[in-house]
Amino acid sequence: MPQTIAQKLTTIRAHMEEANLDAFIIPRADEYLGEHIPEHNQRLLWCSSFSGSAGTVIILKDRAAIFVDGRYTIQVKQQVNTELFEFYDLHETPHIAWLSQQLPVQANVGYDPKVHNLNWHNASVNTLSKQHINLLAVQENLVDLSWSGRPLPTTNIGLLLDEQYTGQPSLEKRQQIGADIAKKGADAVIINALDSIAWLLNIRGKDIHCFCVILGSAILYKDGSLTFLTNPAKIPAGFHDHVGAGVDIIDESQSTATYQALGEQKLQVLADPETCNAFFQLTAQQAGATLIAGDDPVALPKACKNITELAGMRAAHIRDGASEVRFLAWLAAEVAAECLHDEITLSNKLASFRASNEHFVELSFDTISAAGANAAMCHYNPANGVPAVLAMDSIYLFDSGGQYLDGTTDITRTVAIGTPSAEHKKMFTLVLKGHISLAQMKFPMGTNGGQLDSLARQFLWQEGYDYEHGTGHGVGSFLNVHEGPQRIGKKNSAVPLMPGMIVSNEPGYYKQDEYGIRCENLVSVVNKDNGHDGKTFYEFETLTLVPFDLHLIDQKLLNPNEVNWLNNYHQQVFNTLSPLLADSDLQWLSQATRVIKLN
Amino acid sequence: MPQTIAQKLTTIRAHMEEANLDAFIIPRADEYLGEHIPEHNQRLLWCSSFSGSAGTVIILKDRAAIFVDGRYTIQVKQQVNTELFEFYDLHETPHIAWLSQQLPVQANVGYDPKVHNLNWHNASVNTLSKQHINLLAVQENLVDLSWSGRPLPTTNIGLLLDEQYTGQPSLEKRQQIGADIAKKGADAVIINALDSIAWLLNIRGKDIHCFCVILGSAILYKDGSLTFLTNPAKIPAGFHDHVGAGVDIIDESQSTATYQALGEQKLQVLADPETCNAFFQLTAQQAGATLIAGDDPVALPKACKNITELAGMRAAHIRDGASEVRFLAWLAAEVAAECLHDEITLSNKLASFRASNEHFVELSFDTISAAGANAAMCHYNPANGVPAVLAMDSIYLFDSGGQYLDGTTDITRTVAIGTPSAEHKKMFTLVLKGHISLAQMKFPMGTNGGQLDSLARQFLWQEGYDYEHGTGHGVGSFLNVHEGPQRIGKKNSAVPLMPGMIVSNEPGYYKQDEYGIRCENLVSVVNKDNGHDGKTFYEFETLTLVPFDLHLIDQKLLNPNEVNWLNNYHQQVFNTLSPLLADSDLQWLSQATRVIKLN
Repeated sequence: MPQTIAQKLTTIRAHMEEANLDAFIIPRADEYLGEHIPEHNQRLLWCSSFSGSAGTVIILKDRAAIFVDGRYTIQVKQQVNTELFEFYDLHETPHIAWLSQQLPVQANVGYDPKVHNLNWHNASVNTLSKQHINLLAVQENLVDLSWSGRPLPTTNIGLLLDEQYTGQPSLEKRQQIGADIAKKGADAVIINALDSIAWLLNIRGKDIHCFCVILGSAILYKDGSLTFLTNPAKIPAGFHDHVGAGVDIIDESQSTATYQALGEQKLQVLADPETCNAFFQLTAQQAGATLIAGDDPVALPKACKNITELAGMRAAHIRDGASEVRFLAWLAAEVAAECLHDEITLSNKLASFRASNEHFVELSFDTISAAGANAAMCHYNPANGVPAVLAMDSIYLFDSGGQYLDGTTDITRTVAIGTPSAEHKKMFTLVLKGHISLAQMKFPMGTNGGQLDSLARQFLWQEGYDYEHGTGHGVGSFLNVHEGPQRIGKKNSAVPLMPGMIVSNEPGYYKQDEYGIRCENLVSVVNKDNGHDGKTFYEFETLTLVPFDLHLIDQKLLNPNEVNWLNNYHQQVFNTLSPLLADSDLQWLSQATRVIKLN
Repeated sequence: MPQTIAQKLTTIRAHMEEANLDAFIIPRADEYLGEHIPEHNQRLLWCSSFSGSAGTVIILKDRAAIFVDGRYTIQVKQQVNTELFEFYDLHETPHIAWLSQQLPVQANVGYDPKVHNLNWHNASVNTLSKQHINLLAVQENLVDLSWSGRPLPTTNIGLLLDEQYTGQPSLEKRQQIGADIAKKGADAVIINALDSIAWLLNIRGKDIHCFCVILGSAILYKDGSLTFLTNPAKIPAGFHDHVGAGVDIIDESQSTATYQALGEQKLQVLADPETCNAFFQLTAQQAGATLIAGDDPVALPKACKNITELAGMRAAHIRDGASEVRFLAWLAAEVAAECLHDEITLSNKLASFRASNEHFVELSFDTISAAGANAAMCHYNPANGVPAVLAMDSIYLFDSGGQYLDGTTDITRTVAIGTPSAEHKKMFTLVLKGHISLAQMKFPMGTNGGQLDSLARQFLWQEGYDYEHGTGHGVGSFLNVHEGPQRIGKKNSAVPLMPGMIVSNEPGYYKQDEYGIRCENLVSVVNKDNGHDGKTFYEFETLTLVPFDLHLIDQKLLNPNEVNWLNNYHQQVFNTLSPLLADSDLQWLSQATRVIKLN
């Protein structure tokens, strides 16, 4: 019989008493500190039933509280027992500041240093010590001690990604980045980000849904040698030949001793205090290592795709685009036949087209298939409730993508079901104008995504509208569909856009309870050597190849440059995809990419 | 007989020996830490002959070095004796890091804590102490001790600015800001910025060319009372009635005791460690005060003009616009008569039109009057060399403004002399398109100038061009023509644009050794309540009223919205200025503001 939440809290409190703790902190993050959490590490969900992507629970002896941000204030009260938990906004009431006001002097707060970053640790020690409250690391997470029937970690064997997809051997990557960290005075760097490890070793895994990595952590030394702490059972045959010299596999259960060894050798250890867990850093430091705070040195080389990765991304987008076109042609025929499907049927159909593609591995994220008003929720998931059915004279938004051996895709199209209203067309066209403005922009070397964001919003702004999400995120190469360090958004980005980086271009508009619109392509940054006065300018190459729905365009609102861009794009889509399509799909594509004239 | 630089260095070194110093640091800044330095505080110029707006000299026992940034690497070698000084780029070779490498352990470095901010002090102590080098405050600046014939500070009596111009009594301003600092836990705030003091007391002065302030510093207490440290001889009659209760005047020579008193009362003292000199803060702290680091609390209220200040700015811009039109009409007639004047003659003529205006006080900065290739230097000053003469078939750029009792103006126009080339017209039109894009943009509350910058650059970027200066700076109300905290530029600004803020809109293009283009108006931020979905949107109101030269426009490059904006703007210019003009001036304006059609 499954435990109730009340029983779970009782068990955790018994462990707290044993360890003489007055409080225990449970964040959503696991020891890999990433966006995606494998099932066996969903500790916050297990102890509270809250399924959001950010939040923290604090359990006291006779109370418990959950802290979530503004996105989740409604959801948290639907999911979490209001008799067992108090609710706080984590921005208005930061959890550590709150905790420091609840406890007496000399109280003991337990935490698991593996599931927090070092910046959190340092700030929390600072806040709590002012009230003379102790922050104490537990040896084992109290949730893990309490969780009966906890799922086992997956033991799927990973795959060795061939150089035809990666374009650079692991040894070369490791030696280059090893030399980079040596220049910063470091002997070694702790790499906690799962996608950084996967990229560095040219391996992929099946440990997390939609995110093809092998769980573990790594230490890269300045000579390019590397220690990979993981479950050795998941390492495929031929691994050592594949990665080249200097890679040791150590069982993840030996983490403590391995990080201590960095200290015993008195090494200068680089680590990112924001993305690297406190446990690794504190263990090394307490054993004698000197910590150097700095960015993950893999992030930038990983973000700047090499020519092989870019060629793979282009190829993947061609196959992926053909699948989307098959889906759109099928959808148009179904709607014409008055077969209006539900959101799950639609996303399954789309997935089936993708799944038949060469090199397809899995979806790159859960498809957002959103009919009518559901599309006004940017991150709607039809699987979380009763899927809605398409309605005539509405618009349908679907945001989806695939993981292929040669690349990752992420595309949103918004299409008319029946006859769209004048308002649908006006708002779609304003969004599309922003998409085009960004897509065709050239910009000087050194420009970051924060500087480009307003170009995508300007036409909405001009009419008094806006959207409450970023305009673009980085995308990995058969890796994380949300990849840093580059981004395009209202907040300034510290990292300029550089050739080879891939970002999404996805302005939108959302009218609550009515409809949602998003136009999303992936683009890569290219240097076409087209600046004057000795300046270097970059521009975008569009990777995604799927028509925008001409039924949703108000041609009066487009200027000649925009019409020209759209016609050229559709011509490119037709020329590239038509060899892959036949019969009704090809006919549909031909219609969907027809030349439009300036109104 | 004036001292040579060599003699000056010898004298300073004698004072260094007396004080047992191995080095002495001389920055450009004076104790007011502003952009403008009165003549008697031009210490860097006196000791080195370098006249640039940023730089530092370090004098050692037998060497001296000057540190300037990339803008001044040529100028510094023209002005500074290369046998007496070594030259460094201050970004490549920060002066304190350099100094820490030149001196032995236990060396003594002298500095004047009045002419550095606290952040500089703290960073310098940190760097030098690592090498066991001492940073020692001098009682009196060694330049002042050495400077024979040093100009006396001005003793011009200030003026009391009437509420018809300020819109708010000093007492009310002081009480509001006093309450603001109390909320931050402060008992008092040190105000070092001269324009903050002038605004807070509703007074202006004549102590610095083009910058109408009275030299001094101030302490504002949480109850709204204020101590003004200045030369009491400059305080005009009726001052206490004008400012209301609670303002003490103390002679600036009593600074040390006054700042010590903050410490003796154990006060919590707010100060901006970036804009407030180290001496005031360290003196208060050493006497027992607790420093709270924070922004100057006057900056934001001063930046957000009230309705009286905005009305004054509008009125000043009408008079100022009429002067510019008279100048442009005169210039057109002179060029038609083949009278081609030099840059100084032109700027003097322009100044004479301005000077005849009601409420005119002085120019708001030295006029940039730049013919042909000189305009490619953004901050060209024709007074620094032989002024160039206008040439036919070229373009002329002039950037100028006035200080009026009711406001401050700053405008750049670029005009054709004879027949401009196709390239002139193309580049002018690209700059103007950027100007228009920014001028007519609406944007959501919370947007900062860093987000809007690319809107003004997008058309240049699209063709592979850019300009190497910001797009907009704040402007004071009969105060500093460069005012913070708002700005529009490539770097993100921490402060969002707020209603009442005034900024310049001044994109440009500069082709080295050929020509320069800039289109500059001042605009204010207004809330017209025109957002949807519950969002608040702001837009700009254009204050500057002077035609853009239609001869420089390539109409093919303008879209209907841009043509419409330009025609509306010119209509507004004509309607507003025509009642002030007559005869040939009015005829010229009528021609210059004629309606253009879409090409």
